[in-house]
Amino acid sequence: MSGAPVKFRSRQSISQVEEGNDLAPSFDDRGLITVVTTDAYSGELLMQGYMNAEALGLTIKTGEAHYWSRSRQVLWHKGATSGFVQNVRELLVDDDQDCIWLRVDVEGGASCHVGFRSCFYRRVPVGEDFDKQQDDGHIDLVWTDTEKVFDPEEVYGDAPNPTIL
Amino acid sequence: MSGAPVKFRSRQSISQVEEGNDLAPSFDDRGLITVVTTDAYSGELLMQGYMNAEALGLTIKTGEAHYWSRSRQVLWHKGATSGFVQNVRELLVDDDQDCIWLRVDVEGGASCHVGFRSCFYRRVPVGEDFDKQQDDGHIDLVWTDTEKVFDPEEVYGDAPNPTIL
Repeated sequence: MSGAPVKFRSRQSISQVEEGNDLAPSFDDRGLITVVTTDAYSGELLMQGYMNAEALGLTIKTGEAHYWSRSRQVLWHKGATSGFVQNVRELLVDDDQDCIWLRVDVEGGASCHVGFRSCFYRRVPVGEDFDKQQDDGHIDLVWTDTEKVFDPEEVYGDAPNPTIL
Repeated sequence: MSGAPVKFRSRQSISQVEEGNDLAPSFDDRGLITVVTTDAYSGELLMQGYMNAEALGLTIKTGEAHYWSRSRQVLWHKGATSGFVQNVRELLVDDDQDCIWLRVDVEGGASCHVGFRSCFYRRVPVGEDFDKQQDDGHIDLVWTDTEKVFDPEEVYGDAPNPTIL
């Protein structure tokens, strides 16, 4: 890792942002950019999170995913507690540069604090399946993964649950 | 399509939200939930958007992706202008139910207003590749797709570009 810090360009024009070569990310009024993280091999969506400028710079420099934890309000080196570090195989940016896509390889194979491989382990019935399920409008989720790959209590101990109601 | 409107449960407890069968989505202070949309076959990330409660309900009812357009501040039936309707093959929700994953089949194959198949057509060099590229910290994006599948001017005409600087 060289000593050069990562620098972002300022946003000048739509053509620069959409069809140029400058990395000129848009951080929102909280200083955050949305991040989508998929498994580089299976294509499965593992998690959706946020980065501030520091987390994005560290991810680019180190090749390991860093996020901003909104619930804990800290820079979050993913895997620092659980060991499930995300090695970035590819980092892409979208057309208007307000979203980052990480394609990662996860050491140990888990990305979800509940204990599952992916955070997305429940399906919502759609269209005809919605109609078939019931008639009062409320929806029963359908589980797509029921096997936890680790025990959250063993890994996180007494750390507060990050889910906010 | 039956007449029953889609109803969401209120959020009562962490166990209900994370490990229950209730669909009890969390909408943020703008009334929006984050949406990640991937190609159901290739696994490629097509776009990242937002839904309000109405858009989520319509997506569930109709099986076609509806979003909330933040730049235009309107309910947005994806493909209504361009013809590139997204048929939802699977709709999943994450652990704390503040993110929706759509796995879609796109009629016509395009999801990006710039004209590309995916909104993510540029790569950021990471780790050693970052170090190799330059030494002043600024980053040159690397194009991963250069072939537009449609001409935005023909499809959208004089409609304002949704990108906000």
